[in-house]
Amino acid sequence: MMVAESALTNWLTERAQHIELVLERLLPSAEQVPARLHQAMRYAVLGGGKRVRAALVYAAGYASVRPGAVTRDMNESLDRAAAAVELVHAYSLVHDDLPCMDDDMLRRGRPTLHVQYDEATALLAGDALQPLAFDLLAQMPLTPDVVVRATRVLAQAAGSLGMAGGQAIDLASVGKTLSQQELQQMHLLKTGALLAASVKLGGIVAGAQAAQERCLDDYASAIGLAFQVVDDVLDVTTDTAKLGKTAGKDAAANKPTYVTLMGLEGAQSLASSLHQTARQALLPLGGTATLLGGLADFIVLRDH
Amino acid sequence: MMVAESALTNWLTERAQHIELVLERLLPSAEQVPARLHQAMRYAVLGGGKRVRAALVYAAGYASVRPGAVTRDMNESLDRAAAAVELVHAYSLVHDDLPCMDDDMLRRGRPTLHVQYDEATALLAGDALQPLAFDLLAQMPLTPDVVVRATRVLAQAAGSLGMAGGQAIDLASVGKTLSQQELQQMHLLKTGALLAASVKLGGIVAGAQAAQERCLDDYASAIGLAFQVVDDVLDVTTDTAKLGKTAGKDAAANKPTYVTLMGLEGAQSLASSLHQTARQALLPLGGTATLLGGLADFIVLRDH
Repeated sequence: MMVAESALTNWLTERAQHIELVLERLLPSAEQVPARLHQAMRYAVLGGGKRVRAALVYAAGYASVRPGAVTRDMNESLDRAAAAVELVHAYSLVHDDLPCMDDDMLRRGRPTLHVQYDEATALLAGDALQPLAFDLLAQMPLTPDVVVRATRVLAQAAGSLGMAGGQAIDLASVGKTLSQQELQQMHLLKTGALLAASVKLGGIVAGAQAAQERCLDDYASAIGLAFQVVDDVLDVTTDTAKLGKTAGKDAAANKPTYVTLMGLEGAQSLASSLHQTARQALLPLGGTATLLGGLADFIVLRDH
Repeated sequence: MMVAESALTNWLTERAQHIELVLERLLPSAEQVPARLHQAMRYAVLGGGKRVRAALVYAAGYASVRPGAVTRDMNESLDRAAAAVELVHAYSLVHDDLPCMDDDMLRRGRPTLHVQYDEATALLAGDALQPLAFDLLAQMPLTPDVVVRATRVLAQAAGSLGMAGGQAIDLASVGKTLSQQELQQMHLLKTGALLAASVKLGGIVAGAQAAQERCLDDYASAIGLAFQVVDDVLDVTTDTAKLGKTAGKDAAANKPTYVTLMGLEGAQSLASSLHQTARQALLPLGGTATLLGGLADFIVLRDH
């Protein structure tokens, strides 16, 4: 189930380039009226990011599909599902960066959307990315019952019991001391929900069996949390240039993190243990889960 | 096809009370974590409004259903579709009222959400209402192909080629002179898209035939635009207390309106003509469209 690090890096690079082209194609063109809004949406979505969520959709899809069942329609559907989670992720970053939230100026090494355009345009661009994600799912060339299941997964991951709910808890936590359980609950929603949905969507689109779905769910919970723990570690161990966003920001904002709660070593050891849990969840899937295993390594061992 | 004015008023009141109960039931409870976010979502959605969009869903549904085909599942689906459009409408008002947009303090006679709570909570509550709308549609007890069609209709009405796009054009129009065509394009998106989607959703859920759908579409375009023309008229002819929102605001903000473009009489005459168009579109539907006809009267003849 191991994949050579360079092979995985190559695959991730290839998938990131691929999803960029897919997003290019599926986003409204920069000339279409209202042009400024469409330009802002494209600025928010295109031009980078690690595309971890898209990679998880593809990797979970490849781990779930029956041999010989990879059709053109399935590939198109995986593209649309991967694009949908990237759109939801991009919208959440745009709204997160607004002055009334994190008030951030830098994202992926570029000015944030409201700095580049203006606040109202950033608000509307985020608002418009969300329904586009659901429209992309609704247009997957799959049987409608699968499309409906996928829609529910994304809707719940994005909503008040998922990502938006995690943001709200995060907001309420500034200046407070949270228990590890409360912190975990926040991150399971804020970051984990969409990462887990990415894995789930890949499985659903590719026709995963119930037993496969259970393995994917266990894997998804572990890496969803690991992702945030590693983020908190990197926030104190890495500089702004490398992160592509303002480093040390959480500590400065007096936000509780895994590092403030458990210390740097404690957080690193938690990340390690979640990494093992994720890898173990994949064992029953055998060789088909090679890429998912590699992604777990990538998420935990990344340096930015 | 005429319905006595008092009968329609009674029906509207009954439907408004009904959708309020449906929304009460379908929104997350005020106690559920994250409680403050859920309270804000409920504040944004519950407690009033004319519920025109919900009424259009029901009326279009009743105009489309085959005799004897009104089942419990269809009623439940109409409830969910009506709730979904009300959620999208409520989220758009919340984001519209934010300081970076219209910066409004009063809505439905109460403090706007960001005044009552705070800006970040208002942003997130709006963000969370949108996926909830899609989740409600995805849970309609209908055949999945109908659910997928409904999802696409709502997604497109809410997105950059619908409501959010109309907002963006509105934003760009401040201080400019628009032609009637540009103004119409803006309103067709900003207000018309969701009103038209409400009519369309009612038809889809109730199993409208293609010929019925064409009548509904023509009706929907006309009343979608009429609604905004009448809004512009009321903005200059009615006071703040009666409107439940700040009157004269568009003129003060130097926003182009039908009244600034065509004068008060010109706008009133356009509203009248759209009213006739809407009523004529309903003729082939016969008696089943009585409520839709009454709603066209209500939209054009309302005084707030």
